[in-house]
Amino acid sequence: MAATVPPAPAPSPAAPLPLERAERIRLFWHPLSGHCHRVQLMLSLLGRPSELVEVDVLAGENRAPSFLARNPLGQVPVIEDGGLTLADSNAILVYLALTYDPARRWLPADAASAAAVQAWLSLAAGPLVQGPSTARLVRLLGLPGDYEQAVATAENLLAHLDRHLEDRTFLVGGGATIADVALYAYVALAPEGGVPLEPYPAVRAWLARIEDLPRFVPMRRTPAAVAA
Amino acid sequence: MAATVPPAPAPSPAAPLPLERAERIRLFWHPLSGHCHRVQLMLSLLGRPSELVEVDVLAGENRAPSFLARNPLGQVPVIEDGGLTLADSNAILVYLALTYDPARRWLPADAASAAAVQAWLSLAAGPLVQGPSTARLVRLLGLPGDYEQAVATAENLLAHLDRHLEDRTFLVGGGATIADVALYAYVALAPEGGVPLEPYPAVRAWLARIEDLPRFVPMRRTPAAVAA
Repeated sequence: MAATVPPAPAPSPAAPLPLERAERIRLFWHPLSGHCHRVQLMLSLLGRPSELVEVDVLAGENRAPSFLARNPLGQVPVIEDGGLTLADSNAILVYLALTYDPARRWLPADAASAAAVQAWLSLAAGPLVQGPSTARLVRLLGLPGDYEQAVATAENLLAHLDRHLEDRTFLVGGGATIADVALYAYVALAPEGGVPLEPYPAVRAWLARIEDLPRFVPMRRTPAAVAA
Repeated sequence: MAATVPPAPAPSPAAPLPLERAERIRLFWHPLSGHCHRVQLMLSLLGRPSELVEVDVLAGENRAPSFLARNPLGQVPVIEDGGLTLADSNAILVYLALTYDPARRWLPADAASAAAVQAWLSLAAGPLVQGPSTARLVRLLGLPGDYEQAVATAENLLAHLDRHLEDRTFLVGGGATIADVALYAYVALAPEGGVPLEPYPAVRAWLARIEDLPRFVPMRRTPAAVAA
C-alpha cells in the first residue's frame, strides 16, 4: 500500500549556508520527458525539496558544452546533489532511494526483491523506451522512428504488465517501489503515442494507485500533449 | 583491480540433500546469447557451481508453456536457485552479487557507486541491445532489424565507453563490478555485427582486463560466429 514518508528535516536556523544549499537538489529536466518526470515524482514522493532547471532539448541546449560536462550523453534528466552530478533516470532513482529512504521501502534490501526491482528497471530502459516512448515521440514530435514496431513493442509490454498486475497492488512486494516510479510516466502517456490503455484494466488500476500516493505530482501537460 | 573471490563453501558430509541441490544454480541459456554469457560469467567469477540447461530459442523452445512458466517474456537467461526462479540478466547479476558477495565488491553498497553501476545497467538494457547486439543478430542470424541504425547506436555507445575508460581501469570505482560483467559480452562481440573495435583502444584494453580476471570464462564460439 501507499508508503508513508517521513517529512524532510526542518532547516535549523543555526545551519550554515552550505547545508542549506545541499538540501535543495537541482534537477535538469524537460517538461515533455517521462524520464524527467520519473525523477521529479521520486523527489516529491520522498519529500525532497528540489529546483527544476529547464533544458531546452528541442533547441539543442542538451548538446551545449556546459550541459555535456554534466552528462556526456547529452540527455536529461541530470541531478546535482551537493557535490554529486548524476545522469540516467534509473540511476537517479537508485541514488535517491539509497540516500533518502533509510527504511528501504522504495528499493528493498533483500536480494530477491532488489532483483525483481532491477528486472523492471531493465524493461524501463529497454522496451518502455522502444515502445510507448518512441511511439509518442514519433506521433507528438514527428521524430524519426519505426512507428508500427514501437506500437507492437508497447502492446507486448502492456500485456505483460497487465498480466503481472492482475493479482498485485504494485510491481514488487506489497508497497510502491522505484520500479513503479520508473514505469509510471511512459505507461500513463501511452495514449499520446496512439496506444490506448482500455484493453489493460489492471494497468489502469495500478496507474490510479500510483496517482493516489501521498505527494504524487502529475506530469505537466504541454499544448501538444493536450491536443493529442 | 581484479577482485579475489572467496571459494564457495565446501559441502558438509553431514548436510542433507536439499542443501546440496541448492548449491548448484541452474542456468537456462543459449550459447549465442550475450545476455546468457553475462550470467554464466558472473557465476564463474563468484565461484558458484552451476548447471547449464540449453534452451533452443532458434527452434522456439522459449515459447513452450514449460519455459513461459519460468519467464512469461519467453527470454533467456533464467536461473533457478533453490526455490527462486529469476529472469532478466541484469536482475540476475544484482541477485547473485547481493546473495553471494557479502563484501559487496561486485555491487558496491554506497549510493553514488550503486547509482553509477545502475547507469551502466540501463545502457546494457537499452543502447547495448539496440546497437551491437541488434547489429549482430541481423548480420549473423538474418533477423529483421534496422542494421544502419544499429551500427550508429553501437558506434555512439563505443565512443562513450572509450572516453569513459580513457583514465579508468573498470567502469565504476577501482575494481570490477557487475557493470563490467553486464557490458562485456556484446561489446566483445561487436565485430561479429560488423562494428570493428580498432577505433576504441581504451575499450580493447578494458576487455583484456576483464578476460584477465580470475575464473573468467569466454563465450562459446559457434560455427556461425567463427565464420563471421
